[in-house]
Amino acid sequence: MPFRFLYTGIRVKNMDESLRFYTEVLGMIAVEPLEEVGPTKGKVVTLKSPGSEQLLELNAYDEASRFCAPYENGEDLDHLAFEVEDLPGTVDRLRRMGLEVTVEPYSIDGWGEACVKDPNGIWIELLEK
Amino acid sequence: MPFRFLYTGIRVKNMDESLRFYTEVLGMIAVEPLEEVGPTKGKVVTLKSPGSEQLLELNAYDEASRFCAPYENGEDLDHLAFEVEDLPGTVDRLRRMGLEVTVEPYSIDGWGEACVKDPNGIWIELLEK
Repeated sequence: MPFRFLYTGIRVKNMDESLRFYTEVLGMIAVEPLEEVGPTKGKVVTLKSPGSEQLLELNAYDEASRFCAPYENGEDLDHLAFEVEDLPGTVDRLRRMGLEVTVEPYSIDGWGEACVKDPNGIWIELLEK
Repeated sequence: MPFRFLYTGIRVKNMDESLRFYTEVLGMIAVEPLEEVGPTKGKVVTLKSPGSEQLLELNAYDEASRFCAPYENGEDLDHLAFEVEDLPGTVDRLRRMGLEVTVEPYSIDGWGEACVKDPNGIWIELLEK
């Protein structure tokens, strides 16, 4: 009875704002168009980065949805990891865009690493080989 | 300045327990062995399902780690999605193993769907085409 991991679904407070962040700032592309899902009273879109097969699903729920609990940041999602080419420059650029930098660039196991927060408070880990 | 999505990292309370769940129950395999990471005072392992390229990283932090905030379940991680072949039988088996079933099997957009909780309270979505 096999299980096959398909994707990670994060919940976003505002679909327009998060879709802009993940596509315009982080450069992801929609692999399926945004759709409204009747049974969950939600909006959903699936994204990937050029050159990566990893899938990220964004979920927004109407207030009437049974899945629309108050939005709290938890510890269960540790981070979403993205590879970048110029870590210091990338962190500077994101900081100037108003993003909170939670971990300043440092070196770990041969990688450069830093963390910023997405519009929902989710930690985005930036890695440079 | 491209960003390339690499993987999703979840935080687990107990590495042994979660590694057993994701490998023995959900059948995932380690693509890199479990390692201890000095700078973060953490343990980390990266997993994938046979037949899928999606990567899931498990992170456990020592109490002395700066990343070891009290474990709270939030809304930012909506769910991790897994495809299965026999949804009702899978849900029954997981329930008998003691997992909480948060959404009983139902039909949505041509897929069968149900949700259970992992040992950390993370929602695992099960999908059957």
